[in-house]
Amino acid sequence: MLTTEKVKQAAEMLKPVIRKTDLIYSSDLSKNNEIYLKAENLQITGSFKVRGAYVKIAGLSDEQKAKGIIACSAGNHAQGVALSAQKSGINSTIFIPSTAPISKIEATRKYGAQIRLVDGVYDDAYNEAVKFQKETGAEFIHPFDDEDVIAGQGTIALELLEQLPDIDAVVVPIGGGGLISGIAYTIKTLKPDCKVYGVQAAGAGSMYHSIEQHKRMELPSVHTFADGTAVKMPGQKTFELCEKYVDKIVTVTDDEVATAILTLMERQKLVAEGAGALSVAAVMFKKLPLDNQKTVCVVSGGNIDVNILSRVINRGLLKAGRRVDLTIEMLDKPGQLKEVSKIIADLGANVIRVSHNQGGENTDINECYLKITMETKNLRHFCEIKHALVNAGYKISEER
Amino acid sequence: MLTTEKVKQAAEMLKPVIRKTDLIYSSDLSKNNEIYLKAENLQITGSFKVRGAYVKIAGLSDEQKAKGIIACSAGNHAQGVALSAQKSGINSTIFIPSTAPISKIEATRKYGAQIRLVDGVYDDAYNEAVKFQKETGAEFIHPFDDEDVIAGQGTIALELLEQLPDIDAVVVPIGGGGLISGIAYTIKTLKPDCKVYGVQAAGAGSMYHSIEQHKRMELPSVHTFADGTAVKMPGQKTFELCEKYVDKIVTVTDDEVATAILTLMERQKLVAEGAGALSVAAVMFKKLPLDNQKTVCVVSGGNIDVNILSRVINRGLLKAGRRVDLTIEMLDKPGQLKEVSKIIADLGANVIRVSHNQGGENTDINECYLKITMETKNLRHFCEIKHALVNAGYKISEER
Repeated sequence: MLTTEKVKQAAEMLKPVIRKTDLIYSSDLSKNNEIYLKAENLQITGSFKVRGAYVKIAGLSDEQKAKGIIACSAGNHAQGVALSAQKSGINSTIFIPSTAPISKIEATRKYGAQIRLVDGVYDDAYNEAVKFQKETGAEFIHPFDDEDVIAGQGTIALELLEQLPDIDAVVVPIGGGGLISGIAYTIKTLKPDCKVYGVQAAGAGSMYHSIEQHKRMELPSVHTFADGTAVKMPGQKTFELCEKYVDKIVTVTDDEVATAILTLMERQKLVAEGAGALSVAAVMFKKLPLDNQKTVCVVSGGNIDVNILSRVINRGLLKAGRRVDLTIEMLDKPGQLKEVSKIIADLGANVIRVSHNQGGENTDINECYLKITMETKNLRHFCEIKHALVNAGYKISEER
Repeated sequence: MLTTEKVKQAAEMLKPVIRKTDLIYSSDLSKNNEIYLKAENLQITGSFKVRGAYVKIAGLSDEQKAKGIIACSAGNHAQGVALSAQKSGINSTIFIPSTAPISKIEATRKYGAQIRLVDGVYDDAYNEAVKFQKETGAEFIHPFDDEDVIAGQGTIALELLEQLPDIDAVVVPIGGGGLISGIAYTIKTLKPDCKVYGVQAAGAGSMYHSIEQHKRMELPSVHTFADGTAVKMPGQKTFELCEKYVDKIVTVTDDEVATAILTLMERQKLVAEGAGALSVAAVMFKKLPLDNQKTVCVVSGGNIDVNILSRVINRGLLKAGRRVDLTIEMLDKPGQLKEVSKIIADLGANVIRVSHNQGGENTDINECYLKITMETKNLRHFCEIKHALVNAGYKISEER
């Protein structure tokens, strides 16, 4: 049974293994309130998952340990289990779908796990893992629907109560629900007046819909770039704990999450993954009643593939008018490229890419297109440049 | 005079104002040693500069405070001074060259400073600031060559000695030398056997050359994207302190710094600016004798413009073979684009940009070029794709 005693024991077990991560006040995110970030992205393995995994593994019998452990995951759970097994001196076999980012696979391998790459998606890897479990009798470590795992994640709440004793609210990302179950149980038992809010990606709102319907719902499909929370159905235990202890669950869009990631990078100097930034997105886009509340956003992880991070940044820059693509129609005669370049340079923008093409079927024979990508200071700056080009007689045919 | 008492007093003054930033162990950076990161990028204002600025300002007389303060900076010093003035309830006027990134200007304005944008570069802004100082009698806050400022930066060393009592070495970025002077003085006074190493950008090695020549040298020009350290000449006080207390100074290239920034993002989930990553670059590229040493890298700041960060990431991905540009020569006949796309997709790479052009003067009339930008897993993966294309009869004419 889940008890605060169990959570406290978990915290003792974890003390020599994990980092007590920093709680960081954010003046940028605070409006009529005080917003703090619990930086579990700075946890070893880059996410909170190692807490629950280690507690589960440390509680196994010697006989179970001798048979080794199994997990199936494309992400943070894999790394948490692998490191926990390494620290406990036991064998681990992790089943990973072959579509997982190479960076996560390599990180897991580095912690000494046996990696089994399975062609296909999560379900394919899961099926292989189950087969392997039957053959070997090794212990399967569930990513969330397990009381030891939940107790391990709950240790975050103990740290929060110590780091911010007069905490009013905590905002927690939800995938399968292990993290919020542990935090909500512990907070509501020790400080019942503190609110516990959950956040899911709109495209993966299995817990959100389940709580709304008061029964576990399975989504036909999930679609979000907060891949750490892409779970079709909440756990039984986690569903029950959320029903009982969580005050409210809200959802955020992928665009809101991307904006939160960019803000965390620019203003807080922290790299968060999609799942990790859900809580911050909910605060930034005012999804929760947080006025006058000392609020902690749990930033649950930072394991984002750099290719994806690069796309998040580029998209954020485009949306903020700080990087723009502009297509200019012009007559194909000498000197035009020079003139356009001069106008842009004089206004202090920085051209990063140019392509110059003769026209397509809809243009006159002597027209051509110049497509320019440039860095601008903001939307206003971009408008200035556009006006200057139009005033000089150029026709802007497309922008984004 | 600089004394440890003065540094300790500075620490007391700073206690209610700044964050005692986290010391983070890095298993990734540790090889035959233990590498820790002092995360001053997570300091309020995004860099250590607020420490020295606040100590200086808090020490002014009431008369001086009434006249307000002035600073000239395009970066972290501006933000440190502005926030310190705000916290002390006095007026600040910050002179900023108009070429500074808009994000830094806006951050400074947010802290309540009067901003004077001066057309031109740092020296132009500095001349304006001096003129304004003469007119108003306001106090000019030097960014580094000032004992109060140096004592403020030295408080980092007190925290390090508390956070890692058996520290063997500390690696510190150098611009004008204020940070390392404060740290080196404090460390060598309180724990003389701890080594203190400095790192400069190769294109802005004014302290490096000055120490080598045993006299202050002025560089004709500085060129580095670690813009926070782009100082032509070290201070008089900082030069003397470095001569006396710093064990060794090394330099790193901009490429090495960019790699360090990418590693800090990917592995440590921390955003560092160029100056902030100098220390990590020196460790990664083995510029210092750190075997078996418990070593702290001071990550001095994280205020990097996102446009620049995006370029650092893109360049890092290109260098690691994780994003590649490939130009393929092919016959301009139907079906070729489809075939090339299929080969690439089958091998699991992700195409992010395609441009298809008929050839230039050096190609046959029926040849054309296909330029493809794609995301690959690593260099090996990229080579696989190249081989598959060559085996299918395509000629790869250019890559990077």
